[in-house]
Amino acid sequence: MHKIAVIGLGKAGLPIAGVIAKHGFEVTGVDIDERKCDIINRGMNPIPDEQGLDELIKNHGGKNIFATAKYEDARDCDFFIVIVPLFIDKVHNPDFSILEDAFRNVGKILKNGDCVVLETTVPPGTTETVVREWLEEESGLKFGEFYLAYSPERIMTGFSISRLRDFPKVIGGVDERSGNMAFEVYEKFIPKLHKVSSARTAEFIKVIEGCYRDVNIALANELFKIAGELEIDFYEARDYANHQYCNIHLPSTGVGGHCIPFYPWFLIREMERRGKYDHSNLLRTGRETNDLMINYWAEKIILECLGINKFLGEVKVCIKGITYRKGIKELINSMNLALAYLLVKKGLNVFVYDELFTEDELKKLDLRLIEPKDADLVFDCFTLRLELPKKS
Amino acid sequence: MHKIAVIGLGKAGLPIAGVIAKHGFEVTGVDIDERKCDIINRGMNPIPDEQGLDELIKNHGGKNIFATAKYEDARDCDFFIVIVPLFIDKVHNPDFSILEDAFRNVGKILKNGDCVVLETTVPPGTTETVVREWLEEESGLKFGEFYLAYSPERIMTGFSISRLRDFPKVIGGVDERSGNMAFEVYEKFIPKLHKVSSARTAEFIKVIEGCYRDVNIALANELFKIAGELEIDFYEARDYANHQYCNIHLPSTGVGGHCIPFYPWFLIREMERRGKYDHSNLLRTGRETNDLMINYWAEKIILECLGINKFLGEVKVCIKGITYRKGIKELINSMNLALAYLLVKKGLNVFVYDELFTEDELKKLDLRLIEPKDADLVFDCFTLRLELPKKS
Repeated sequence: MHKIAVIGLGKAGLPIAGVIAKHGFEVTGVDIDERKCDIINRGMNPIPDEQGLDELIKNHGGKNIFATAKYEDARDCDFFIVIVPLFIDKVHNPDFSILEDAFRNVGKILKNGDCVVLETTVPPGTTETVVREWLEEESGLKFGEFYLAYSPERIMTGFSISRLRDFPKVIGGVDERSGNMAFEVYEKFIPKLHKVSSARTAEFIKVIEGCYRDVNIALANELFKIAGELEIDFYEARDYANHQYCNIHLPSTGVGGHCIPFYPWFLIREMERRGKYDHSNLLRTGRETNDLMINYWAEKIILECLGINKFLGEVKVCIKGITYRKGIKELINSMNLALAYLLVKKGLNVFVYDELFTEDELKKLDLRLIEPKDADLVFDCFTLRLELPKKS
Repeated sequence: MHKIAVIGLGKAGLPIAGVIAKHGFEVTGVDIDERKCDIINRGMNPIPDEQGLDELIKNHGGKNIFATAKYEDARDCDFFIVIVPLFIDKVHNPDFSILEDAFRNVGKILKNGDCVVLETTVPPGTTETVVREWLEEESGLKFGEFYLAYSPERIMTGFSISRLRDFPKVIGGVDERSGNMAFEVYEKFIPKLHKVSSARTAEFIKVIEGCYRDVNIALANELFKIAGELEIDFYEARDYANHQYCNIHLPSTGVGGHCIPFYPWFLIREMERRGKYDHSNLLRTGRETNDLMINYWAEKIILECLGINKFLGEVKVCIKGITYRKGIKELINSMNLALAYLLVKKGLNVFVYDELFTEDELKKLDLRLIEPKDADLVFDCFTLRLELPKKS
């Protein structure tokens, strides 16, 4: 039986490590966070919001899941799953440094016949090019002496375990043999697994899902603005426009989080590198439309102050909800947080309210807490409603 | 019981006239085409492709459907449904002339207490502004003395009758009374009818459905081009990317027909008129992406000639399928036809093949017929496949 290493025990890595352990495999989990490793080895779940994870970690943590900060401890593994973050820099290029570090460390312990699978969402072509090179350089092996494949995580914070069980998952190899090898192992713990023709195809599949979401949210935002201009209730129109052939999404302050707003850039930047400037106009316009929504909302908020008998600079504006998604305490690329900062920068008297954050936590973000009822104007980032609590 | 006039007995008007007659109403159908009216009055169906229409016209044509070219003949009707074409001019502005003519003629026979419903897809705001004005001017009545509402047709050529029965349909009045009045009549022959808050909302609903389709086809086309550049099989990727939350459409030569390619312009032009140039960037980019696809395919076709040992000007290129949709003999805004003309203009040796068109019919379009097997290169506009018949 294969001994499996999972590199990265975050929101995506720990659930899959738990699921693999549940299927009877011995799992070595590698994560730079030693404290987190200790917690897991004591059978405690460091990601309490994840449904079903408590039980998995209680049953397997410190038993057939051994968490460690040392790659060396995974030396006896023959199957490596890498699922570490990929960030995007200020000009929307992927920053591969964490990925490179992980693969170089895996390369150092890689043996002839081992198999490596990447799960992090990456620009199409990443696995077969840079990942392969990092592994070859560090291991001294040539691809072919080890197997290499890609299978994108399709987690959704809070529901990652049920997704691994219920949702289709694809896997593709850098070559045919790698694809087959990785598929045979993965199908032992992923029920709805599909092999696709290449790692690059599997990478592309994940990225275009995100592009679909981003462009369709942009479309919803654009139609929402047009409806506002035409004095039409967007939500009423959407209710009746949507049917089996039409799926107009919901408007927002933009698209946040560590996934969707980044993926279109993978394709946009790659097309630019190839001089194909006309191959990603829609993706780019979608990104711009979404990112510009905070300006739209800032103007709406400022104009709403016309109805308040105070100097503009004294109107207490409350931005309600600063996380990128309701109910999830995460601020990565939160456009709601960006909206608050934008209004601060414009010189408004801005406060925020988010039930997930204490006054002290907000202070560290240079933001002031206010109870919505004490504000003159409240903008709810999730319902997109503007309210004047003192007028009601 | 109301006596109902249906103005326009085309692909949208005749099916609804048939359905209304089937529900026991007396229907006067008005159409400028006298020959067509004769055919209908003899119980024969002038639109044979429409499923179920033969039977309806056989049962009701010349009985409780009376077709006529004279508006005067509809003078005793008290409920008018207008469903005539709206075209778009070369610079993408709606050309209201047919609509204006129809409503001015209805206005001439309009009586106090009558109700008028528009079904043609129009820019939001049309019914409450210009339509109301035309009716008021010609009838001498004031709105309030007659009722006015809007209910968008949602036909699909070939399936219009089942759509009227099975598909949700919305209706909205220029005022509350008009909405209620029109709803009460329509619900007698439309089972899945929903009243929305205004005519403008109902107009918007129809237009944004088209926008959803157009932008999503543009997205499919863009992702298809990117996949080609990355040497990934788009269709394989699409198969696995699509699931309950993802609905990537199919790529094409662009978007043809008399509906989808026009609707985004309704909103784009209206936003421009209002100086809101930043409110329709995505819709515009979607339109551009789709309309530019013929250039993409033209280049693919020309480069495919590299594999043929002939002077480029002698290569017999066959464009297979010139209608805008497979199996429907219609050329309105066909991008497939546009592709053929584009290649002719570039100087290539272009032929076409379409099982729905004879050599003579093609000649009238300034196009030459070829059997695909006799061409050096065949581009199938529906499968997007390029083939070299003589090489196989």
